[in-house]
Amino acid sequence: MVVSLPSLPPQKNQLMLGTFVHSEARDALKFLLNAAIAVDKQGKIAGIEDARADVNVAKKLLLKRLGWKEDELDIYACKPGQFFFPGFIDTHVHASQYPIVGVFGESSLLEWLEKYVFPTEAKLEDCATADKVYTACVQRTLAHGTTTAAYYATIHVPATKLLADRCLRLGQRAFIGRVCMDDRELCPLYLRDKTSKESLDNTSEIIDYIKHIDPHYEIVSPILTPRFAPACSPTVMSGLAKIHQAQGLPVQTHISENAAEVELVAKRFPDAGSYAKVYDNYGLLTPKTILAHAVHLTEGEASLISTRKSKVSHCPCSNSALASGEARVRWMWDRGIDVGLGTDMSGGYSPSVLVAARQAVLVSRHLAMGRSDGEAKSKLTVAEVLYLATRGGAKVVGLENKIGGFEVGKEWDAQLVGLRIVGGGNIGESGQQKAEEKYEDSGNVDLFEWDTWDRKVAKWVYNGDDRNTKKVWVKGRLVHQRP
Amino acid sequence: MVVSLPSLPPQKNQLMLGTFVHSEARDALKFLLNAAIAVDKQGKIAGIEDARADVNVAKKLLLKRLGWKEDELDIYACKPGQFFFPGFIDTHVHASQYPIVGVFGESSLLEWLEKYVFPTEAKLEDCATADKVYTACVQRTLAHGTTTAAYYATIHVPATKLLADRCLRLGQRAFIGRVCMDDRELCPLYLRDKTSKESLDNTSEIIDYIKHIDPHYEIVSPILTPRFAPACSPTVMSGLAKIHQAQGLPVQTHISENAAEVELVAKRFPDAGSYAKVYDNYGLLTPKTILAHAVHLTEGEASLISTRKSKVSHCPCSNSALASGEARVRWMWDRGIDVGLGTDMSGGYSPSVLVAARQAVLVSRHLAMGRSDGEAKSKLTVAEVLYLATRGGAKVVGLENKIGGFEVGKEWDAQLVGLRIVGGGNIGESGQQKAEEKYEDSGNVDLFEWDTWDRKVAKWVYNGDDRNTKKVWVKGRLVHQRP
Repeated sequence: MVVSLPSLPPQKNQLMLGTFVHSEARDALKFLLNAAIAVDKQGKIAGIEDARADVNVAKKLLLKRLGWKEDELDIYACKPGQFFFPGFIDTHVHASQYPIVGVFGESSLLEWLEKYVFPTEAKLEDCATADKVYTACVQRTLAHGTTTAAYYATIHVPATKLLADRCLRLGQRAFIGRVCMDDRELCPLYLRDKTSKESLDNTSEIIDYIKHIDPHYEIVSPILTPRFAPACSPTVMSGLAKIHQAQGLPVQTHISENAAEVELVAKRFPDAGSYAKVYDNYGLLTPKTILAHAVHLTEGEASLISTRKSKVSHCPCSNSALASGEARVRWMWDRGIDVGLGTDMSGGYSPSVLVAARQAVLVSRHLAMGRSDGEAKSKLTVAEVLYLATRGGAKVVGLENKIGGFEVGKEWDAQLVGLRIVGGGNIGESGQQKAEEKYEDSGNVDLFEWDTWDRKVAKWVYNGDDRNTKKVWVKGRLVHQRP
Repeated sequence: MVVSLPSLPPQKNQLMLGTFVHSEARDALKFLLNAAIAVDKQGKIAGIEDARADVNVAKKLLLKRLGWKEDELDIYACKPGQFFFPGFIDTHVHASQYPIVGVFGESSLLEWLEKYVFPTEAKLEDCATADKVYTACVQRTLAHGTTTAAYYATIHVPATKLLADRCLRLGQRAFIGRVCMDDRELCPLYLRDKTSKESLDNTSEIIDYIKHIDPHYEIVSPILTPRFAPACSPTVMSGLAKIHQAQGLPVQTHISENAAEVELVAKRFPDAGSYAKVYDNYGLLTPKTILAHAVHLTEGEASLISTRKSKVSHCPCSNSALASGEARVRWMWDRGIDVGLGTDMSGGYSPSVLVAARQAVLVSRHLAMGRSDGEAKSKLTVAEVLYLATRGGAKVVGLENKIGGFEVGKEWDAQLVGLRIVGGGNIGESGQQKAEEKYEDSGNVDLFEWDTWDRKVAKWVYNGDDRNTKKVWVKGRLVHQRP
């Protein structure tokens, strides 16, 4: 059923022209105007020309410098209202839960897992269902500009292989986590690794498979995935730590999302001292560990995580929807912890990292409301949440030298964003819209002629959606586009 | 420049077939399956047939009962994944601030007004700008399913007339508020009624104008709009109360949005006793008053508002974005206050009532987080926020006998919602999307074959957008549609 897929087609050199926006620092966006970026056949940025009199000057200078000929290139030039932005990095997302985005009633974490999540994940034992779900998920997240995703699949081996195949074929950079969960108390019989050996063996089978379809992990990579401490036996956690040490593979898990869960961990591991120490005791708290949520961390845990250089995936949509709490991003930054954004679909109600960025702004405001203490400073800016969504995320998944911004030598993981200019499109003229006319849908962001670049980007963060993501590239390959 | 517009074209009888969803009670949605609703030439619901063996049975029974002939009708039938829903009612929205949706930096209320809002509103002195802004705003909100809006315009008379014209021509039911603001301390010279007489006279000019273009206020109606207490002189507030008493026109204003504003009001009106009492003292707290925000109400104020039967517009997007606070909807309900939803664009970052409903769910969860007191019960359900968006809003604007749900005699203010079924559309097939193929964009909601109606609606609330609003009617008139 699951087959290996043909390798990617050869690429041409490409030239991107226009405006480029990316994070220069955690709190500052940089705008490259009248600029040109050259992307070579391997998908790497070969050269950048910035701030020229006009974009043609930038183009000519760059082509001359690289010795490239215009007629051998694919050229992409910004139209008015458009700019290039780094691809989004989703540091925590459950591909298997795509069928229940937005479905959780009034439940909170543990009840929600039992009532909604586990029955949904169980369906993916069937490969035809898994194909439908994973294909829809990868296409949907690509359409939202997610160029890299750290995925949780399920316990099922064939379906997890299929997710790796789909990412490779559709061209999304991904970490593929076959979920380990063998605890008899927490995991239902119908969704459980029957033994710790099965859990570890099945993990190894996924690693071998991915090594076979993408030997250098250029697009897809395995990631070790103990669901969360109460779902895993000590044997599984130690076993995964051994694989981690032997092969240097990354690890992802959950931490301190919800009060009841924190209590449960304290009860299960009475001698550990803290939730973070549970992972540390089993050798799972390392610079390659992604910890999702981290809402209720203590000072001691933050200090331990910072010392171990483990990373945090902040999932604001999920934390609001499940009433888990308000994670303190600035507080973690102040303690030296690297943070990225996760949609945590489907605890998070949206597959879009842009929506997660928006909600990160809002959650930071809820954190600040009516406070006169340190949290009054918790408000995150538009620049800061876009940092989380790109460079911050790149650090979290350990790819900060490859992706997250526009520098020579980095790979071209990017999106072309297009915003409508009022008066330049189909809406905004007086009179009623004619139904018969071709309806060109350019999204919800309306720019007016007086808008500055700062405002354009803010409008995108607050009202943008997948309609504004016109094109998406991963490693130089065009993997999504819309009119 | 501003001209009266031709009256609406005559309508045919219409028949709606399929699934209808509306609020049966505050906490319960009702699903009418295999149903038919007849809408007469005046835009009123003439008959309903529900729960038949199939939709054709419902259709035949209804036509027979009404004596209508099929070939004299316009018929709209739901396709798979579609349902009819009442139009949204936006009980608080600043049309004039449409150019700055999503633009507020890190500011909170008073600073934001000065830095962003007032300069933007001032631009609307120019009618060409006003036309661009108001036309875009009305078309955009219609596209989001807003069939009724309680608008704040600006102080400018020609531009406010123009807003009334645009609503009438484009067919959106609207309350048009020419903003009164004559306080010399708070209002900048460039955006201020020069005298209290000018403030009241200009208000009367707008009332006369609207009476001229829509004599029975069937689609557009004036609404008295003292911006908020600190922006108005006592003379203006008393004068507006007199007009209110004489003509029975509704009133809209702001209350208790932000801590600094509450403090300012206490300083300005030291003898009033409370913010709510300020309005009450001037005769502005009546059953026809819409109070926006009401975040920081005291028990005494809630009791006064409840006694006066004044209404509250809950604006969660705005309250989160400006870090104003978390309004307690259930707390107000428990005190007998009617509540509706407001986008409060552009304090709210979105013109969509659906987004406001979503954020109302999330804000209610932030309110509940970590609480063991009464607020732990503050969580709002999907059914409850959809009630706020429809029937709740209808009560707030005083039109509960005309709109908000599907009953015989009510006017047909409705939207046809369409959600994509995975496997039935362009995404979800294996393999890469072909750029050359026609890209039919059906939005972000993906239904799977096992989804129940409850889940379909929840998915719409969490991930729906204007792409899912396929058609919109106001008073039986089709005012918006997309493919």
